[in-house]
Amino acid sequence: MTASPTASTRAPVHPRDLGVGARFSVHPHCDRFVEVILGALAEAREAGLADSLVVETDEVSTYVGSVDDAPEERIVAYVSHVLAAAHRLSGGGHVVGHVLLSRGCPGEAACDLGAVRLPIVAPVRVEPTGVDAVAQWSLYPLLDGGSGGGSHGGDHMVPIEAAIAAARRRGTAVAPAHYATRLRGDVAEVLATATDAWAGVGAEVPHVVTHLTVSIGSPSATGVDTDGAAA
Amino acid sequence: MTASPTASTRAPVHPRDLGVGARFSVHPHCDRFVEVILGALAEAREAGLADSLVVETDEVSTYVGSVDDAPEERIVAYVSHVLAAAHRLSGGGHVVGHVLLSRGCPGEAACDLGAVRLPIVAPVRVEPTGVDAVAQWSLYPLLDGGSGGGSHGGDHMVPIEAAIAAARRRGTAVAPAHYATRLRGDVAEVLATATDAWAGVGAEVPHVVTHLTVSIGSPSATGVDTDGAAA
Repeated sequence: MTASPTASTRAPVHPRDLGVGARFSVHPHCDRFVEVILGALAEAREAGLADSLVVETDEVSTYVGSVDDAPEERIVAYVSHVLAAAHRLSGGGHVVGHVLLSRGCPGEAACDLGAVRLPIVAPVRVEPTGVDAVAQWSLYPLLDGGSGGGSHGGDHMVPIEAAIAAARRRGTAVAPAHYATRLRGDVAEVLATATDAWAGVGAEVPHVVTHLTVSIGSPSATGVDTDGAAA
Repeated sequence: MTASPTASTRAPVHPRDLGVGARFSVHPHCDRFVEVILGALAEAREAGLADSLVVETDEVSTYVGSVDDAPEERIVAYVSHVLAAAHRLSGGGHVVGHVLLSRGCPGEAACDLGAVRLPIVAPVRVEPTGVDAVAQWSLYPLLDGGSGGGSHGGDHMVPIEAAIAAARRRGTAVAPAHYATRLRGDVAEVLATATDAWAGVGAEVPHVVTHLTVSIGSPSATGVDTDGAAA
């Protein structure tokens, strides 16, 4: 982002040009995992949450994108519903979701937005799922030397620290960990916390990515000692 | 990194000051997941692969670090062994590992290395596991405006593109995807590809993170149609 007076006269970039989207995978820890995953995806589709989204699955994960305006809320509502539904359909079992949210880099290695007027995204509102989760969350503002810093002056830790402070005020951020911040709350609120931080940084840094590992119903959380395990 | 002549006269920073380490979680998609995870971790420990590593588990994932020199190879050998062992112990079932490798930011939000002489890390050598995997891999050089660019001049896509080209030459990078590059090969070779790229960028950019979702034995890969599922 340039700070030149001409920047503000540019038309805001459209979300489709920002490549706003998610990749996620859902991991039911049970023998019936295919049935649970298919059921959860069908539930989200039947609830209309996949409407106007692009959903593409491959061997490893599922891409969720949109070419419409303000796709952030719809993307996170879809992912939130699938994770909570998988937990219910597994009989309240242990389900982990891994979620990557990205904006500013539509392709594998194409990232040439340059100086554009980035959209301001309102905080997302996602219906609570009634399912509690604990997550590890990391946020990566991909600044470029001398040009990508916006008002942060090019220090990548400034927007990260601000995002963690906002999550603490919200009550979802509970503890720091190596390379991540621990979040806890309803699945929807955990995902919304990360989404708002990611979209907020995206108003100043064109390319920003966030990763969450969202754990639901882990035996580690209920006192079963898994002795070094990451269940 | 500064390009000033004094930079090269500084003592190289020690790995412990770089916070070199990993966070990983392993997800066996079976009812016996606790037994499988515990067994895989025990196998790696008994094989001596946890020696001189710091292994700390919480509710969501496991941190693996080291205060010794050149910890990269030992960390990736440990993670590689655990993932392959989990696949074997689950009876050849579907296991997914999520792996985060980080250097340059020891704490949650402490990242004040400034201009230091960063260590050059030799390519890691990790024993093949005999277990094939497909992975989605993302690499994040966390440059800072005007100071973190090293010889790349502050464009964060330059080291990413170079790393993808190196993975293609190696034969593990098989396809681009939204926000990630597909890797395929022995679990050890997939992890080594990401590790070498991450450590390589880390010779020029102090803070660099890479994420992999490593999928083993997925029914999606063997023709079962999971229709939108990320199994």
